[in-house]
Amino acid sequence: MDKTSVLLQLAIILIASKFCGLLARKCKAPQVAGQIIAGLLIGPSFLGLIQPSDFLTGVAEVGVILLMFGAGLETNLTELKKTGVKSTLIACCGVFVPLICGTLLYMAFYGVSAVGSEEFYKAVFIGTILTATSVSITAQALREMGKLSDFVGTTIMSSAIIDDVIGIIVLTVVIGFKDPSSDVKQVIINTVLFFVLAVVLGVIVYRIFKLIDVRYPHTRRIPILGMALAFFLAYVAEEYFGVADITGAYVAGIILCSLDDSKYISRKMDINSYMIFGPVFFCSIGLQTQFDELNVTILLFSLAFVVVGMLSKVVGCGAMAKVLGFSGRDSLKIGSGMMTRGEVALIVAQTGLGVGLLEAKFFTAVILLIIISSVSTPIILKLLYSEKKKLNNDIAA
Amino acid sequence: MDKTSVLLQLAIILIASKFCGLLARKCKAPQVAGQIIAGLLIGPSFLGLIQPSDFLTGVAEVGVILLMFGAGLETNLTELKKTGVKSTLIACCGVFVPLICGTLLYMAFYGVSAVGSEEFYKAVFIGTILTATSVSITAQALREMGKLSDFVGTTIMSSAIIDDVIGIIVLTVVIGFKDPSSDVKQVIINTVLFFVLAVVLGVIVYRIFKLIDVRYPHTRRIPILGMALAFFLAYVAEEYFGVADITGAYVAGIILCSLDDSKYISRKMDINSYMIFGPVFFCSIGLQTQFDELNVTILLFSLAFVVVGMLSKVVGCGAMAKVLGFSGRDSLKIGSGMMTRGEVALIVAQTGLGVGLLEAKFFTAVILLIIISSVSTPIILKLLYSEKKKLNNDIAA
Repeated sequence: MDKTSVLLQLAIILIASKFCGLLARKCKAPQVAGQIIAGLLIGPSFLGLIQPSDFLTGVAEVGVILLMFGAGLETNLTELKKTGVKSTLIACCGVFVPLICGTLLYMAFYGVSAVGSEEFYKAVFIGTILTATSVSITAQALREMGKLSDFVGTTIMSSAIIDDVIGIIVLTVVIGFKDPSSDVKQVIINTVLFFVLAVVLGVIVYRIFKLIDVRYPHTRRIPILGMALAFFLAYVAEEYFGVADITGAYVAGIILCSLDDSKYISRKMDINSYMIFGPVFFCSIGLQTQFDELNVTILLFSLAFVVVGMLSKVVGCGAMAKVLGFSGRDSLKIGSGMMTRGEVALIVAQTGLGVGLLEAKFFTAVILLIIISSVSTPIILKLLYSEKKKLNNDIAA
Repeated sequence: MDKTSVLLQLAIILIASKFCGLLARKCKAPQVAGQIIAGLLIGPSFLGLIQPSDFLTGVAEVGVILLMFGAGLETNLTELKKTGVKSTLIACCGVFVPLICGTLLYMAFYGVSAVGSEEFYKAVFIGTILTATSVSITAQALREMGKLSDFVGTTIMSSAIIDDVIGIIVLTVVIGFKDPSSDVKQVIINTVLFFVLAVVLGVIVYRIFKLIDVRYPHTRRIPILGMALAFFLAYVAEEYFGVADITGAYVAGIILCSLDDSKYISRKMDINSYMIFGPVFFCSIGLQTQFDELNVTILLFSLAFVVVGMLSKVVGCGAMAKVLGFSGRDSLKIGSGMMTRGEVALIVAQTGLGVGLLEAKFFTAVILLIIISSVSTPIILKLLYSEKKKLNNDIAA
């Protein structure tokens, strides 16, 4: 590897992804989408300025781990315990309805396959990609309307967090079954063992960190050791338990999320993420996306994937909200609020690509879903809230 | 490359280097020294936990660029213009006396060689390593005694900055001559052309950044584009002008150092540096250090290198200060304040290793110089200042 070429590649990736990211934001699309498109443009598909390399793969891998560690860190366990049952039920429906719909969608396009076959798990994986809600855009939209902290807003936020946890568990199990010859019992044992280890290690590590945090608050050692924990758990998960590395990183984040300094760690992580590792990760997705396999089937599949992805969340979460006693309109708000997809869907897809459960051609579908759901959610939410306001005004008049 | 092994390696490097860094600080040695020793311990020489890889080389390379970009960013051009002639003269002597002494030291050990031969440039390179003062430890010591902003303190700080600039120019020229068949005229033309380009590009880029900075102060795009500029200039310097990449990164820092947001960029850079890239860089120096070639000659050389390195700065800077009218004691303070070496000496040594002007066995000498000079400077300064105080007290009594 030529060391100067590393520098040129990074310079090109940083400039292209910042430029396309800002452009995407101007078009009300998420910046992430812009960064992926930047990767497409500078990659082998178009300009050919950047070729995938060991170095870039490594940096992108670190990027994913940092993103998932950050997601875990932002979990608010106290809030989670309070909102409790209702949010959990909504989240469950919000995971399983899209999971099943996604699986059926794949089978509708590529044929029904026997339960347990490799093709079956490929179908389930399409469903798995649909499970993870990315609530940041919804949160921003609700914040702008001053509705983030009311009952519907809190329900959406809590459900989204629980949704993440359940989604990670689903992913872990599906990845465990990836090998058609895999022993069902062994996979379950491994997965359970990993979570047991995570809890035991979590309790010990949390106490050590708490001691350090009390004695040396806001010192560099805290985020550095936190990051080392994320790398270590990610490694252990994949190497010894056959659990996805991103699960390990996410668990590391949850272990540390109740520390006084968790926000401090999170901020340092965030700076590392958005400066180098994040852009390289999202760009590298664009680098890998190939258009050679683009055909009518995959285009139709992508459109269906977007529609199914969005509707299954609205229906799954909304129906459960209605059952739990929310009004029709509030149920619709909750469903729409949960339908945005973002980074996590991409990370899941990337993980699937790595273990051979997803083909590169499906990335187009995932990217489309992220762009369309992110752009449409704020618009739909604004409509739902403003009509209610209009209605209230009519009654008052 | 196995992607999970990347994670394990990073976890080990982060934990080991933080641990050894803190231990070093407890022993009043610089953290950097601890991080290098961490690399030694976990590397092939001892535990063998980490092997050098393309990924680590790339991350270390980015680390160097970030460090040098940061050094450039912290330059205070206005201050520099004010202190002017005196500091420049002190800095010049502080560069050229060690440069000559280092060259002679190498020749004393390994034989005199004809001017222009490869062996001659190897000798000059030993001198080049001795040129760069690392003033951060001196600054800290002066700050603790409340003497940072008095005339002697300001002179030391300004001389150290100018010392960096001259040191970089010396390095650039020496690297240019590395090839014994290189055309002297061509090297000089290339070097001059690079600095001309840097000035022209600098003026344009600075204006663009100033525009962005006024319209979007404190936004992520500023440090990201700044970092891209550093990578880009580093690449262009090495690839098209045969100038060391670290020179390019340093120049990028100087271009942006007068921006309103230069501190903002510097802080973001710093976080990226100390979280991942810095530890990997310093550890990787330890990884590369080999003890197979350790013998009596190299040990004697290392000791002589440390003595010559420290004395040549004291004599060079001190003598010029005396000539310029400083008192004997103040001249001694200035000389002692300038004798610490740090990251930059390592970065220069690393660059020499890359282009074949330095053998790995000399790293021991450089590391020893950094540790001993960093530990002794604060002690010597304290002695020099306290004796004066005692003297003043005696007079007052």
